[in-house]
Amino acid sequence: MIDFYGDMLTEKQREVVELYYNEDLSLAEIADHSMITRQGVRDSIKRAEAQLLLYEEKLGLAKRFRAMQEKLDKIRETAEKINEYNDKFSLSIEIREMANQIMQYAEELSE
Amino acid sequence: MIDFYGDMLTEKQREVVELYYNEDLSLAEIADHSMITRQGVRDSIKRAEAQLLLYEEKLGLAKRFRAMQEKLDKIRETAEKINEYNDKFSLSIEIREMANQIMQYAEELSE
Repeated sequence: MIDFYGDMLTEKQREVVELYYNEDLSLAEIADHSMITRQGVRDSIKRAEAQLLLYEEKLGLAKRFRAMQEKLDKIRETAEKINEYNDKFSLSIEIREMANQIMQYAEELSE
Repeated sequence: MIDFYGDMLTEKQREVVELYYNEDLSLAEIADHSMITRQGVRDSIKRAEAQLLLYEEKLGLAKRFRAMQEKLDKIRETAEKINEYNDKFSLSIEIREMANQIMQYAEELSE
């Protein structure tokens, strides 16, 4: 959820949360690094987590993103099946190109 | 942007903004309806607008949504072209079904 809502946190909060979740630092290490107390780090992370959950509840980006990825996978799979069918019966190079184009678009949407 | 971030506003703010932008009521009408002053309504709308812009700056949902719609349109168009090509040369009913399936997925993603 940091990926979705990270920009909604303060710079300080974001830094602490990223060190904790992405860099896997301990509370003590983050406290050293950020010149605040261990308890201060813990409170900051708790507050940030509560905020991220609230944003997800309101906006549901993470959930919508997962649903979108599933459907894009299906588009890719179906385009791939068109290719397989097309190859099997040696139908048309144009159809292969168009199916590849669809896979490309779906790929770009997944990024 | 109300559609994207409406849930991030307070209930009161959201009501005022929706009456103004979606129902096209005047400030005076909203003031009557909400039992606040005309100036209060104006301030509330201004604050809500500033917030919506801030959310868009941070999260860019409206912008990302437009970009996604454009790409989904391209997927639909390309699947449609597969159908046209397929029909023109009477190639395969299976390919038509798969292209239709892709159009259906893209349609669902557009909603």
